[in-house]
Amino acid sequence: MLNQEAASVTTESFVDRLHAAVSAKQSCLVVGLDPVLERLPPDVASVIGVRSSGGEGATARAAASFGLFLDRVIEAVSDLAVAVKPNSAYFERFGAAGWDCLRLVCERARAAGLLVILDAKRGDVGHTAEAYAEATLGDLPDTLGPVVDAVTLNPYLGRDSLAPFFSKIENGKGVFLLVRTSNPSAAEFQELDVGGQPLCAHVAESVSAWGDTYRQSDGWTSVGAVVGATQPERGAEMRTLMPGNYFLVPGVGAQGGRPEDLRVYFDGDGRGAVVNVSRSVLFAYEKRSGPWVESIRQACEETRDALEAVRSTSPGA
Amino acid sequence: MLNQEAASVTTESFVDRLHAAVSAKQSCLVVGLDPVLERLPPDVASVIGVRSSGGEGATARAAASFGLFLDRVIEAVSDLAVAVKPNSAYFERFGAAGWDCLRLVCERARAAGLLVILDAKRGDVGHTAEAYAEATLGDLPDTLGPVVDAVTLNPYLGRDSLAPFFSKIENGKGVFLLVRTSNPSAAEFQELDVGGQPLCAHVAESVSAWGDTYRQSDGWTSVGAVVGATQPERGAEMRTLMPGNYFLVPGVGAQGGRPEDLRVYFDGDGRGAVVNVSRSVLFAYEKRSGPWVESIRQACEETRDALEAVRSTSPGA
Repeated sequence: MLNQEAASVTTESFVDRLHAAVSAKQSCLVVGLDPVLERLPPDVASVIGVRSSGGEGATARAAASFGLFLDRVIEAVSDLAVAVKPNSAYFERFGAAGWDCLRLVCERARAAGLLVILDAKRGDVGHTAEAYAEATLGDLPDTLGPVVDAVTLNPYLGRDSLAPFFSKIENGKGVFLLVRTSNPSAAEFQELDVGGQPLCAHVAESVSAWGDTYRQSDGWTSVGAVVGATQPERGAEMRTLMPGNYFLVPGVGAQGGRPEDLRVYFDGDGRGAVVNVSRSVLFAYEKRSGPWVESIRQACEETRDALEAVRSTSPGA
Repeated sequence: MLNQEAASVTTESFVDRLHAAVSAKQSCLVVGLDPVLERLPPDVASVIGVRSSGGEGATARAAASFGLFLDRVIEAVSDLAVAVKPNSAYFERFGAAGWDCLRLVCERARAAGLLVILDAKRGDVGHTAEAYAEATLGDLPDTLGPVVDAVTLNPYLGRDSLAPFFSKIENGKGVFLLVRTSNPSAAEFQELDVGGQPLCAHVAESVSAWGDTYRQSDGWTSVGAVVGATQPERGAEMRTLMPGNYFLVPGVGAQGGRPEDLRVYFDGDGRGAVVNVSRSVLFAYEKRSGPWVESIRQACEETRDALEAVRSTSPGA
């Protein structure tokens, strides 16, 4: 609780804290926490008596197993990753018990020296956006706000759906707005031609402009962008359109994106992007022998190293 | 629990259930459940000892006060409205306690004969979309799925982010995809010119096409659309582009939309739209005298009647 209180009153900007973590750990890796009941290590599942078919107390047991699993994961990756990115969907799946587990996981990650990026992809209007901003970046104890550093947001509803989150930036919080995602059907709308440019380029220009209000003397802003790894040519264009907005890059690993394609996502000082890897780290033990925690740590280290090799040779570095 | 189990195995389509409710109640009114601590009736707030400043047990007390308040609201509007629309933001604001309250509110609404449209505006990729679909429309006890009839979704990530929700339609569930929202900055992206049409028209065409798979012999589909009341000229265009997709219409009341502008949102049989009103019903006692439950009921009845006057004179009816 003390850690939590201390963290919530920091006034160092999110983007500065991100830069500091990347430098200190020589890592731009974010580990996605997307737990799935059916893929938990057998000893975790058996301890809790989890059955995916439900039954009495199913949500509480599922949440407990996630907590047990992710506690070890956090411990294993804390010096190799700069942040964890729990996705709220996997926790909401198990109702209030899952939500409580999500808060606990964020708290543990914070205590282990990791930044916490809540992947929630929220986006709503007016007063509702304010409620979401309080829910995810606010300061009420026993909610996610005090233990979350940044949140992902969907920009389809425009600036007034995002403004309440922006106002949390002065409290040291950050946001990542979906600009170009990594999924197969992302192009359906994001690549529509708008006056000779894809829609995502228009969104990128807005994100860059919105970030201006919070831009620091070094040119960086805590208004970040989600830019997938699966379309590196778009990544390069996005870097040009949003030179001072940090990228959160999903899509490496299971989704097909490759570290070696990400050079253009960084600036000349190896700054400007953190790269999320979820399943290929979280479930690494499925394809490796030995203790499961060790497999996760190995996969994490290999991914960190592969990304560092790219980051350290980014153009101009 | 028995109600819940029975509801979750229904195979009557969502859109048929919506039609039946509109006919039976002669109402197209959806009451938005957006509770705010600071606006609760004084006797509710004082019973629970709620303080918005936080303190020990603040989330549990907030959730309890929401439960007490909304239980009476549901009772007051159950014969006048076809559905309630709780917005998850206001509950997430209070963490796990809020999430549990949300589930309980949905359960109570169902038991009172109301449909439940969860306003969550979710949207995420692949496996995560599956987790969200399970979280909101699944069948695991103690989660929202068994007590929710339909959910709102954000389409910015394209079809694969929506498909897991679509697959719940055969279980009697429905979805409403954000097409043209009612907030002031909605136009920033939704009205961008894409080959001579606004972006929202392209989204509308996709929503119509996606609905085809689930279209019934009467032409209607359980793939619905969110179309705001604040731009009636767009509403008319949207009706043409999505003739068989039910509209969920926000923006009447506090946001400035007027019932009399909504004629074009209905088809010739007075079908095709349900209209959400949140604050002007939920907090009606702030501008009326008498017991607060009675004020809510009066406001609900007046709004229902104003909407029925329009619905019964929709073009061709």
